[in-house]
Amino acid sequence: MTTITQQQWIYRRQPLGQISADHYELVEQALSTTLGTDEVLIAGRYFSVDPYMRIGQSSQPTYDRDAHPLDTVQQGGVVAQVLASNAPGYRAGDWVRSYTGWQSHARVHASALQAIDATLAPVSTALGVLGMPGRTAWFGLTEAGRPHAGDVVVVSAAAGAVGSLVVQFAKRHGARVLGIAGGSAKCDWLRDTLGADWALDYRAYTDADALGAEIQRLTGGVDVYFDNTGGMITDAVLPRIKRRARIVICGQISQYSGGLETPPPGPRLLHHLLYQRATMQGVLARDYLHRMDEMLAVVGPWVRAGEIVYEETILDGFAQLPAALEGLFNGEHRGKLLVRA
Amino acid sequence: MTTITQQQWIYRRQPLGQISADHYELVEQALSTTLGTDEVLIAGRYFSVDPYMRIGQSSQPTYDRDAHPLDTVQQGGVVAQVLASNAPGYRAGDWVRSYTGWQSHARVHASALQAIDATLAPVSTALGVLGMPGRTAWFGLTEAGRPHAGDVVVVSAAAGAVGSLVVQFAKRHGARVLGIAGGSAKCDWLRDTLGADWALDYRAYTDADALGAEIQRLTGGVDVYFDNTGGMITDAVLPRIKRRARIVICGQISQYSGGLETPPPGPRLLHHLLYQRATMQGVLARDYLHRMDEMLAVVGPWVRAGEIVYEETILDGFAQLPAALEGLFNGEHRGKLLVRA
Repeated sequence: MTTITQQQWIYRRQPLGQISADHYELVEQALSTTLGTDEVLIAGRYFSVDPYMRIGQSSQPTYDRDAHPLDTVQQGGVVAQVLASNAPGYRAGDWVRSYTGWQSHARVHASALQAIDATLAPVSTALGVLGMPGRTAWFGLTEAGRPHAGDVVVVSAAAGAVGSLVVQFAKRHGARVLGIAGGSAKCDWLRDTLGADWALDYRAYTDADALGAEIQRLTGGVDVYFDNTGGMITDAVLPRIKRRARIVICGQISQYSGGLETPPPGPRLLHHLLYQRATMQGVLARDYLHRMDEMLAVVGPWVRAGEIVYEETILDGFAQLPAALEGLFNGEHRGKLLVRA
Repeated sequence: MTTITQQQWIYRRQPLGQISADHYELVEQALSTTLGTDEVLIAGRYFSVDPYMRIGQSSQPTYDRDAHPLDTVQQGGVVAQVLASNAPGYRAGDWVRSYTGWQSHARVHASALQAIDATLAPVSTALGVLGMPGRTAWFGLTEAGRPHAGDVVVVSAAAGAVGSLVVQFAKRHGARVLGIAGGSAKCDWLRDTLGADWALDYRAYTDADALGAEIQRLTGGVDVYFDNTGGMITDAVLPRIKRRARIVICGQISQYSGGLETPPPGPRLLHHLLYQRATMQGVLARDYLHRMDEMLAVVGPWVRAGEIVYEETILDGFAQLPAALEGLFNGEHRGKLLVRA
């Protein structure tokens, strides 16, 4: 029996606060390359690192009843290359997307793979603008945010994988867009490269009132708030919403490192929804998985035409995966964070 | 010129916390009974006392940009009787609904009056089940709450003017209903008279976690939360919502006595909207004013058939009005609170 060496990042310990390499163990083992019927041997090339991974590690029920099981490979999306195939439709060298998580190699039934056409766009986009983050941005904005031309759309974590796409999708709807991010470099990028009308560095404000006053001064009020962070930014935006505003709860990353189990206190602001007859809606990427074709039909041509900026921050080396996930919560990356093996 | 003595409660001072008689002054003056073309002289018989009145006294913008003006008659709905009329369609003795506020008599243009058919139901219902509270309960529940048969509907301030109707309307949709109110007497009434499946006295719970655990135990999870209070009850319910739950923000009375200007802290729970892909929507009675006929077409026959319990707590004497409004925030009344002159 022929084998290859398979590396895996095993999720060993549930984090209470910040996730780090301490919660994982790197193991190596022999993987048989003998393929069953319809099986494919793949080698991971790009590994996704996403905020939702930390939600799955919560000690309380989340969108799943059960937490990510301990002592198993960290789940996640992967762009891989076929090494060998015993399935029709796949040949060595083909690019595929799989959900095999943080392991260097895997034997997978072909039905669990999705082919990637590498001639259309860089294959890594299958984990970004043409993958889950793109789907989240597109459907979260169009189905829950429903922006109209002239609307003011505010995006938190606007330089992130989802937020940076929401900024651009909102501009294409004719909206005026305010991106909120951490640091002046990201804000420059939001304005100069992504086309945001305004950008604010939330770190430059001592409290939500000060940030909110500047949001009001710049925009005159908010029609759509696409929220990836929660916390202080939400506290700043909610008192500034306009009549019939739509608030999209896409992420609450400010609470992921322990604040889901023990929610931190914040001001009670729901009366603003009453005043403005606003709507707030939670959105989750999986709800739109079966509608991927709709998103690709619109966004795909924009990507192929070079009209969408899809920044990637790539760390090299399979060994970097836990550190990359930790870094996701420090907010220093721009666009989609990936690890390349 | 013939005159009568007109009593008025003048709103003199903006409250910072609890509203009371200290913020009003009772004045008397002569009112000419000489009627212009299409004018009607009315005498108030039932005066409405509503939580929204306190919102209008906030120092910050609310659903109106400007607060209730000082040194004017307290605004509000009134059921009145026509004393004299110079308008076609109105005769002495007729019952009308007007928005003339806390004054014993008024001369009003007929276009500002709505005729009440006193043969259909007690005239006071024009301020309750067949008026603004009924409209709020009906459209808030059906348009934002959207209950289905078998759903679990939780109602806060369930013994109040709006809540007690929501309980009954939800039962008519085939939902299972949990009413939350203050005190065991109200809870008995919710179960025994209004038909709630369950009732909980929030005062019997030391914190939101304990209340939430009991909500979960009784109901198995919440599909619709019709919220009139905010605060601790909302903290208890939000972690118990089920997939695609609908949360109706109809009132936040726990914050009205100062907490709109300086929101008290509470746990950040918006991640539950994300987990469950829930929707939260603020509703306001005025948005459905033009659809009153739709509500009356459905609810009117139920009321005439004696199938709806519309409890009224009536205080006697025009002089009681400020005290009645203060009492609204102490939660001791049941159903619709009215002052009879």
